[in-house]
Amino acid sequence: MTRWSRRQKKTSSRKAKTLISALRTAAAEQQHPAVAPRGEQLARRYRQVRDFTTRLCQNLQPEDCVVQSMPDVSPAKWHLAHTTWFFETFILKVWMQRYRAEVPQYAFLFNSYYNAAGDMHRRDLRGLISRPTVQETYRYRTSVDECVLQLIASANDALLDEIEPVLILGFNHEQQHQELLVTVIKHVFAQNPLFPIFVPAVPTPSQHRPGAQHFVPFDEATVPIGHEGHDFSYDNEGPRHRALVHAFSLSNRLVTNGEYLAFMEANGYTRPEFWLSLGWTTACEQQWQAPLYWEKRDGEWWNFTLTGFRRVDEAEPVTHISYFEADAYANWDGARLATEFEWERAAADLAIEGNFVDRERFHPAPAPGGEQLQQMFGDVWEWTRSAYLPYPGYRVAPGALGEYNGKFMCNQMVLRGGSCATSRDHMRLTYRNFFPPEKRWQFTGIRLARDLS
Amino acid sequence: MTRWSRRQKKTSSRKAKTLISALRTAAAEQQHPAVAPRGEQLARRYRQVRDFTTRLCQNLQPEDCVVQSMPDVSPAKWHLAHTTWFFETFILKVWMQRYRAEVPQYAFLFNSYYNAAGDMHRRDLRGLISRPTVQETYRYRTSVDECVLQLIASANDALLDEIEPVLILGFNHEQQHQELLVTVIKHVFAQNPLFPIFVPAVPTPSQHRPGAQHFVPFDEATVPIGHEGHDFSYDNEGPRHRALVHAFSLSNRLVTNGEYLAFMEANGYTRPEFWLSLGWTTACEQQWQAPLYWEKRDGEWWNFTLTGFRRVDEAEPVTHISYFEADAYANWDGARLATEFEWERAAADLAIEGNFVDRERFHPAPAPGGEQLQQMFGDVWEWTRSAYLPYPGYRVAPGALGEYNGKFMCNQMVLRGGSCATSRDHMRLTYRNFFPPEKRWQFTGIRLARDLS
Amino acid sequence: MTRWSRRQKKTSSRKAKTLISALRTAAAEQQHPAVAPRGEQLARRYRQVRDFTTRLCQNLQPEDCVVQSMPDVSPAKWHLAHTTWFFETFILKVWMQRYRAEVPQYAFLFNSYYNAAGDMHRRDLRGLISRPTVQETYRYRTSVDECVLQLIASANDALLDEIEPVLILGFNHEQQHQELLVTVIKHVFAQNPLFPIFVPAVPTPSQHRPGAQHFVPFDEATVPIGHEGHDFSYDNEGPRHRALVHAFSLSNRLVTNGEYLAFMEANGYTRPEFWLSLGWTTACEQQWQAPLYWEKRDGEWWNFTLTGFRRVDEAEPVTHISYFEADAYANWDGARLATEFEWERAAADLAIEGNFVDRERFHPAPAPGGEQLQQMFGDVWEWTRSAYLPYPGYRVAPGALGEYNGKFMCNQMVLRGGSCATSRDHMRLTYRNFFPPEKRWQFTGIRLARDLS
Amino acid sequence: MTRWSRRQKKTSSRKAKTLISALRTAAAEQQHPAVAPRGEQLARRYRQVRDFTTRLCQNLQPEDCVVQSMPDVSPAKWHLAHTTWFFETFILKVWMQRYRAEVPQYAFLFNSYYNAAGDMHRRDLRGLISRPTVQETYRYRTSVDECVLQLIASANDALLDEIEPVLILGFNHEQQHQELLVTVIKHVFAQNPLFPIFVPAVPTPSQHRPGAQHFVPFDEATVPIGHEGHDFSYDNEGPRHRALVHAFSLSNRLVTNGEYLAFMEANGYTRPEFWLSLGWTTACEQQWQAPLYWEKRDGEWWNFTLTGFRRVDEAEPVTHISYFEADAYANWDGARLATEFEWERAAADLAIEGNFVDRERFHPAPAPGGEQLQQMFGDVWEWTRSAYLPYPGYRVAPGALGEYNGKFMCNQMVLRGGSCATSRDHMRLTYRNFFPPEKRWQFTGIRLARDLS
Repeated sequence: MTRWSRRQKKTSSRKAKTLISALRTAAAEQQHPAVAPRGEQLARRYRQVRDFTTRLCQNLQPEDCVVQSMPDVSPAKWHLAHTTWFFETFILKVWMQRYRAEVPQYAFLFNSYYNAAGDMHRRDLRGLISRPTVQETYRYRTSVDECVLQLIASANDALLDEIEPVLILGFNHEQQHQELLVTVIKHVFAQNPLFPIFVPAVPTPSQHRPGAQHFVPFDEATVPIGHEGHDFSYDNEGPRHRALVHAFSLSNRLVTNGEYLAFMEANGYTRPEFWLSLGWTTACEQQWQAPLYWEKRDGEWWNFTLTGFRRVDEAEPVTHISYFEADAYANWDGARLATEFEWERAAADLAIEGNFVDRERFHPAPAPGGEQLQQMFGDVWEWTRSAYLPYPGYRVAPGALGEYNGKFMCNQMVLRGGSCATSRDHMRLTYRNFFPPEKRWQFTGIRLARDLS
Repeated sequence: MTRWSRRQKKTSSRKAKTLISALRTAAAEQQHPAVAPRGEQLARRYRQVRDFTTRLCQNLQPEDCVVQSMPDVSPAKWHLAHTTWFFETFILKVWMQRYRAEVPQYAFLFNSYYNAAGDMHRRDLRGLISRPTVQETYRYRTSVDECVLQLIASANDALLDEIEPVLILGFNHEQQHQELLVTVIKHVFAQNPLFPIFVPAVPTPSQHRPGAQHFVPFDEATVPIGHEGHDFSYDNEGPRHRALVHAFSLSNRLVTNGEYLAFMEANGYTRPEFWLSLGWTTACEQQWQAPLYWEKRDGEWWNFTLTGFRRVDEAEPVTHISYFEADAYANWDGARLATEFEWERAAADLAIEGNFVDRERFHPAPAPGGEQLQQMFGDVWEWTRSAYLPYPGYRVAPGALGEYNGKFMCNQMVLRGGSCATSRDHMRLTYRNFFPPEKRWQFTGIRLARDLS
Repeated sequence: MTRWSRRQKKTSSRKAKTLISALRTAAAEQQHPAVAPRGEQLARRYRQVRDFTTRLCQNLQPEDCVVQSMPDVSPAKWHLAHTTWFFETFILKVWMQRYRAEVPQYAFLFNSYYNAAGDMHRRDLRGLISRPTVQETYRYRTSVDECVLQLIASANDALLDEIEPVLILGFNHEQQHQELLVTVIKHVFAQNPLFPIFVPAVPTPSQHRPGAQHFVPFDEATVPIGHEGHDFSYDNEGPRHRALVHAFSLSNRLVTNGEYLAFMEANGYTRPEFWLSLGWTTACEQQWQAPLYWEKRDGEWWNFTLTGFRRVDEAEPVTHISYFEADAYANWDGARLATEFEWERAAADLAIEGNFVDRERFHPAPAPGGEQLQQMFGDVWEWTRSAYLPYPGYRVAPGALGEYNGKFMCNQMVLRGGSCATSRDHMRLTYRNFFPPEKRWQFTGIRLARDLS
Repeated sequence: MTRWSRRQKKTSSRKAKTLISALRTAAAEQQHPAVAPRGEQLARRYRQVRDFTTRLCQNLQPEDCVVQSMPDVSPAKWHLAHTTWFFETFILKVWMQRYRAEVPQYAFLFNSYYNAAGDMHRRDLRGLISRPTVQETYRYRTSVDECVLQLIASANDALLDEIEPVLILGFNHEQQHQELLVTVIKHVFAQNPLFPIFVPAVPTPSQHRPGAQHFVPFDEATVPIGHEGHDFSYDNEGPRHRALVHAFSLSNRLVTNGEYLAFMEANGYTRPEFWLSLGWTTACEQQWQAPLYWEKRDGEWWNFTLTGFRRVDEAEPVTHISYFEADAYANWDGARLATEFEWERAAADLAIEGNFVDRERFHPAPAPGGEQLQQMFGDVWEWTRSAYLPYPGYRVAPGALGEYNGKFMCNQMVLRGGSCATSRDHMRLTYRNFFPPEKRWQFTGIRLARDLS
């Protein structure tokens, strides 16, 4: 009805500028090491991030990129365009003189949820939009890339000061969408009885069964929580504050498929005593009997992976389970999930290494073995028992940036640690991901904790 | 869950043979004029029909062919594949020796609603299937076409006797899907704020306002209704029988956009006294205020057509209206819709000419003028007030063919006359189309009738 | 939101007068035999009809009368009030001088679907209205009854001429709601695990198995269809007209539970080949495996009746089945349902006798036996294969009366003959009841027909 | 389907005994002052609590008690029966020798959500159950009461030791249902255009406008949180533990209707920047424009209360708002909601006094005035920004008792302080109520907090 008028509306540059000024303040204190010219560094990073998006899509056909298999998750093509729209809207339209969008309606089609950045097309209908084609979308990417790189190349220090924080936000933003791309494609392919293959499986070393879980103890302590300092972080990671964490112990590794099968064989899916009330209702309504992407054939469990449809490997961490399943599993096992504070405390001194998307395995891998904490980063996002809520002193930033995180702080649970679909340099100790408790299409898994007292 | 096993199941040839034997009986009495060798004629016809499907898709991009914009209507790619599956299943798998399907799962993916021909993929999920790609689907078409043409070329008379009726059914089947293709693409493009263009508009002669409606009178009579004879027809068109038709008069032309606008301006959409109870509920729930594809901009009505988004032309017949709207319009006008018997009686002596898809206008055209019956064929399907029910003596044919028509005889209304998306040689005087009363995405329109007594 | 203002609105007397004038015209030609004073006759009839409503409710508790177990069916209390509202609105407010409604809001609460008679409360929410209480509702009945009887007693002939047709419509209207009351209470009680009893079972003569079905033949003929004459009938029963009915035969009795069990045991509920497409979908979605109110216990079928929960009696006619089940049963049996024209032709010379609500059995009874047509009236409404459509020449009456029938002529099937919940003197040869094909809460059943040719 | 078998199943006494043993452990350490004989004390308390339930229903008609106006909230009659079922199941069936339930099916009908206590009737269908009648339900209450009082009277000390904790749980359980009764009746009456009155309004002292809000400051501190000691508390209030609470300030009083109107006039309901994403969606879908029970008439806001439909009083605390509205209001005002730890810290030294249900006002009252903290207890439940989660060290109790609280710890927010529908002696400093963020039918309101740092 009002579609036309809405399409005509343009993101007011005033709004974009509010975003910018917020970012600038945040970046003001940052220092830039003088190793290489800053512009060159930014341009190289820009190309890296943007190219990796393209690389992820290299095996996709145009048809794959159009399909929307869940109302709340967008098709691949939209991600390709939206990440481009971000740089166009928040960089080019603000600082590029005489910049003129080739197709003004893209602003309407490819805005995501930034109410402050103008009207947008309904998310649940994105799968109905066949044009622009994928090829045209790539052209849009290329065209914006050229302009951005040109802007960076010609920028003086004062301008670089202004655009750098927006660029860095854009890099992180694009990395988030890369993760979505991977999980979206997995969901789309899983709907197809032909089970298309995203990438051929990387040959893996001979599999072993990880040893028994070992629970690492932690004393009660008041610890610092949250991000501080000059590096990039999302607003929901701050402000850094002290929190009193009671004594607890944490499993040294993730719960495996084999262990999860034991829960299933103990009728875990049909015994309400292990489940949250809402979880039980959801499991019944959706007829859950196993993790998402699992299918029983001739008495054996198989699962669909991005490298094909294959037998469930008992040594791998279980993944694609909801919070409800993670919680039920923990209850069945007499344990519980960790809070996000416990997790952050335990991970505080660990290196950020693991099975990230950079390895291009696109699937979690078995634990290496040993009693020390492992798999804390990468493999699968770990459900915590913490609801996603603001930290003490948190304030929503003004403007479009303010919509990034704060408005989702309800009915979601915190996930920590990143997954095999996350970029390694996107991850931080303090990174707070979040997801509704009933969703299963992310690479989500379980690490157990226990009270110590 | 049982997806795999279902995919593994193959259409039993027994089922296909039931279909064949039913067709053979029907065709037994047919005579074949000896103008050109029968095989050559069939091959030529085969190529014509199949090529027209391709022609309709020539401007489509792969992305356009994947999108499913309504749960009960399939994407273009599916139509391309399904019409091919028809020939593969009912011709090649039955008569082609050593025929082996390249991709056996296509039988599962591209079956439509023939329960008797094996399991099938859920229709409302067809838009989630990105593979096979459109290009692969065309390869499937080509490969089946080659086999069919080869089979025809090498067939002796006995074999031709057997396959001819199935081929002819296949031609008609494909023509129905061509009509669906056109209307599906229109619906898909209409979802897109960019309003893609299917074909450029054909320049039309200067428009004129059709004159006032003239009601042509018909006396009471007992008339023959339904199809008889050797030519192809669907089973729902028979058996031919006598029906007592009371005196009535029929408008010489279709209701125009201009006349429909008068109904709208008389608040037709907000006055329940003109509407069927179910129609009123539907109109309220779906917030109908105009025909489908109409949009008001700056006080003027525009509509989306396959040749672009343009101002409503008052001289054109109104189209994309539901039965409920047609009925409400007639009540407002103090008239009524015709029964299908009245329609068939009135059209009995007319030539089957009109604005069919062969003209490639893809939109209804204004009436030529004059007091005689016009626009009876082509332009838009005419809603009748007849529920879609079996004729006296109708029996469902055995096997897969039996599913073609009979099982839809509930809660649908009969449409007559064909539209600008119908092939001219697909149309017959006795042709009975049918559609649920609340649907609007077909080219449907209004012709008024009155009692005479 | 606008609730208040809508409640304030009163039925304009103009609207009621339109109804009256339409009725007066219809009644103008009626003649009144002079046996007893007309006023007395009307008063006696009024009391009879009204008292029978009360009698039906005598065993109900206030709680029973409030519950609404289906969104499209009203609670008993509402029926008690609405039938009263009818006389108040169309008699008292029109002819009773200085009549003043005690509770003006009742006009809003107890209007049913007469858009022309003012706004109304939403039907699906009627079960949320606890006040007026049942006792207050009875007071409302008594108060209106006193006024009506007083009006009749004091009316001169001229006034009686005016109100008589409205009164007669009111009697018929109340009888329809009596039937609804019975079926509504059955549905309400059936929801309760305690299975309350409506009335104790009447002791019945020793049951017998009805003999085999006998098909009574009828030749092709052009027959008069529909109502004519001075007696009351609904508008949908006319105008009387001739129809050409082809040769057919009709079963002499209804299909029994025993026969229906054979269909069930032949897997009738899981074989799509017998079902209409929409019927199949409905049966799957609603998981039909037997008629409504049937329940399997320890391997035996029981059914809930108004006289208690008891074993299915194989000799009784099957009831509480949808059109879809009736049609599937007929297909399975190689027969079909009759058209309403066939039914009316066959019943034309039969006396209107049978198991009506007057017998207070509240359940269909086994056929008496013999080869003649039986059970044509009473016991269960017989599904016909005729869609509910207007007869040739039918025109909707103006005003509120016009809403009585015509606006439901879509997506419903015609039922003929009345049931064990219908009043005997409410029934006519030409009576056309109608019901959506998927509904099962009426006393509906099956009589088979066959083509003869 | 399996209704019968489910009804036949009886609560195994084993299950009830698990509950008992858990309670016994908890009560083991309790000491009983010897003022009056323990049995008499318990009997008196039993009568008090049970009688207050009856008192609350004294103005209700049977019809009022049957209606279920929300799928997730039960009708009044069910509450009357369920609280009785509790004592029957967990007291009489366990300790009363030869106790035999008069109607065994009540166990099925009146179980609430205790999976461990046997099967139960579906909650959303409770409004369909007309029998037992309200009168029969009262008989059930009386009969169980007599048995319980008899058991207490005849119990020796050893038995009293066993049943006392279950009785006390039963008292608290009944008080919770008393609160539900009040809010359920309010919702039922609000559906009725006649707006029934629950109780006549108590004449109130002349109203005044409360003064400006005053924010009371609190320093950072590590404080004890949760319940400890011998008195009754729910399991979710423990274990008592230390929590680090950062500096904050808390408004001395609740937000008023007048202040909330200012938010509404500032277009609070149409500005997404104040809203959580889920809140925004909910507000749009449900078309919220004001608190529940508010209605605009002739430009003025009215609200439905238990004492009638009347003008919104600007001095009263706003109530019947969702968490989303409370949060949006706080954002608009530049403040935030308190955490439950902040609330408990601030209330730690306050007497538990206020406008509780004991006053029988059934509506929140204006703040008395002054700068000190007020309205912390009673009037309205205060939304906190704390998600409802287990305290450190919390473990679900075994058996039916374990279902009391733990399984609801997802997607709910904590409410503190009690309301005008809560019993005063049901309230505690540590009491944690919880409610889904989108619900509005409880007496819920807003108290603002701010960061201090």
